[in-house]
Amino acid sequence: MGGDHAPQSIIEGAALAVSRIPTIRFLMTGDEAKIRPLVEAVPSLAAKTEIIHTDVVVAPHDKPSTALKRGGKSSMRLAVNSVAEGRAGGVVSAGNTGALMAMSKFVLKTIPGVNRPAIAAIFPTQKGEVVVLDLGANVECDAENLFQFALLGDGFARAVLGVSSPRVGLLNVGAEDVKGHDTVREAAAMLKESGLPINFHGFVEGNDISAGTVDVVVTDGFTGNVLLKTSEGLAKMIGVWLKEAFTSSILTRIGFFLASRALKNMKHRMDPRTRGGALMLGLNGIVIKAHGGADAETIAYAIAEAHKIISFRLNERIIQEIRESHFNGEALSKVAKA
Amino acid sequence: MGGDHAPQSIIEGAALAVSRIPTIRFLMTGDEAKIRPLVEAVPSLAAKTEIIHTDVVVAPHDKPSTALKRGGKSSMRLAVNSVAEGRAGGVVSAGNTGALMAMSKFVLKTIPGVNRPAIAAIFPTQKGEVVVLDLGANVECDAENLFQFALLGDGFARAVLGVSSPRVGLLNVGAEDVKGHDTVREAAAMLKESGLPINFHGFVEGNDISAGTVDVVVTDGFTGNVLLKTSEGLAKMIGVWLKEAFTSSILTRIGFFLASRALKNMKHRMDPRTRGGALMLGLNGIVIKAHGGADAETIAYAIAEAHKIISFRLNERIIQEIRESHFNGEALSKVAKA
Repeated sequence: MGGDHAPQSIIEGAALAVSRIPTIRFLMTGDEAKIRPLVEAVPSLAAKTEIIHTDVVVAPHDKPSTALKRGGKSSMRLAVNSVAEGRAGGVVSAGNTGALMAMSKFVLKTIPGVNRPAIAAIFPTQKGEVVVLDLGANVECDAENLFQFALLGDGFARAVLGVSSPRVGLLNVGAEDVKGHDTVREAAAMLKESGLPINFHGFVEGNDISAGTVDVVVTDGFTGNVLLKTSEGLAKMIGVWLKEAFTSSILTRIGFFLASRALKNMKHRMDPRTRGGALMLGLNGIVIKAHGGADAETIAYAIAEAHKIISFRLNERIIQEIRESHFNGEALSKVAKA
Repeated sequence: MGGDHAPQSIIEGAALAVSRIPTIRFLMTGDEAKIRPLVEAVPSLAAKTEIIHTDVVVAPHDKPSTALKRGGKSSMRLAVNSVAEGRAGGVVSAGNTGALMAMSKFVLKTIPGVNRPAIAAIFPTQKGEVVVLDLGANVECDAENLFQFALLGDGFARAVLGVSSPRVGLLNVGAEDVKGHDTVREAAAMLKESGLPINFHGFVEGNDISAGTVDVVVTDGFTGNVLLKTSEGLAKMIGVWLKEAFTSSILTRIGFFLASRALKNMKHRMDPRTRGGALMLGLNGIVIKAHGGADAETIAYAIAEAHKIISFRLNERIIQEIRESHFNGEALSKVAKA
């Protein structure tokens, strides 16, 4: 029931996903009177879908605490519950981000060995794509959090980008070992000495994100949120300027007309909606937040992402890796001093 | 002697600046044999210029510590010394950034009431321009640092952007008072209760930078450095994509040709070199780092910026403001708890 075009675009997206991934099955939570006719209009989808009815919906601007307190019977909460109950492998929602995070943390809890969930998304680069996390779940992070985010991001890149040995970079203000504050330096030491087969590249800088220097960029949620929103703002401004440039005279209008297909391709590459959604990683269950303005294609993409991650058994792998790493609370202080 | 095109572009820039600001005078430090002929070729510049000879030059990749230890007779050090000695009101250099910061901190020290210098620069926005600081001088900042950066940025915007009551925003992960970590919330409380005529807007998010929501964006040096470099990387990638889009077929090439003037204007708006350089604020003397690749026009712009800030008596105003604010080391803890 979440997002600007629900439930239509959600159900159309699910129908697309079924046509592409025949083994997939759906639990849909929400207003059955609205959902059932749309689902039954697509027999291949109807055969794979179970509907759990509720009238309660989390509103787009509900506070996370309000949604958590009063949304116990909401479509969002029932969807998250279905993962906790083992009835679903993951949730895809285009609803209220804060509410989804609060409910997911409360209901699913973090996986063993992970202290805090992180929000990850895929950014375009000059060479392909890069996973960036945390994008805002944790405004303050210690070295152990960053170390765990690196493992989460590594697994995510293997599962979704299909990279066999992702290069993992830790975001800093310079590439040299002496740069940055204690937290990033400690996290770098942990990644170097983890004993895990993680391909740790070392420190990267802001410009390395677009340059495609690595496959995974790890940072704290404060920095990640700022860089995400700064990038969105800058891309929007450049879009406005381009439009102004192309409408400034008759000649430039003709130029724009001639180049319009190539420019549309570029716009498509920039569009975050072509990359599914943000992942809430590190929880007992996969939670994907699709864009609020998501259309059917975007929802289908987000569902495919969820399917890849669940099939990859990402969480089981992360749990195993953390168990195999040299680190636990006690070993941490030694590394920090090294 | 610093930068890719020194001393030619530096001296040509100074000549341009003299033609625009007739009251300006120069002290040039460096290799007199190279500098003097170029200066004397422009009589209006020669009449305003004194040359201090030295053979020693800080190399582009010298470590700040090396430059500080061995660069005592370098052109950069002599230029910074001239400010400490009261012979110059400020320095403009296109040389090694780290070395310039280290020498400036060591020789000039921070102004009374300011604990740490900050690096500021002007970013383009959809509405005009915005001052952003700190861009990397301080990877860790407390609330008092951020409070002082706000005063520095406020003064800078008044002096250089010519805004009479700049709106000052504090960068955070959300606009609501409860968002972010303790440091930004404490700094916001200090700005609200400072008793100074500062136009504090409250928290802003990353996208507010390009949107032009405020005239000054204050953040710590870690976040600031990441957002600066992320923005540079993204702008570069979009530039590459645009080029690809326009060279993808004969039609798009014609389109590009027709729109090329408008696109050049856009490129100019994006170019950080049209905005002088980065300012090292909070020191006893104005220090401007011009881009290493600066041409004459950029140097002239950086000199004009330095001139504006010196004429505005920025440092004297900041010292006065900090004295007049309700805060000192003791009062700080009270605000933090409020």
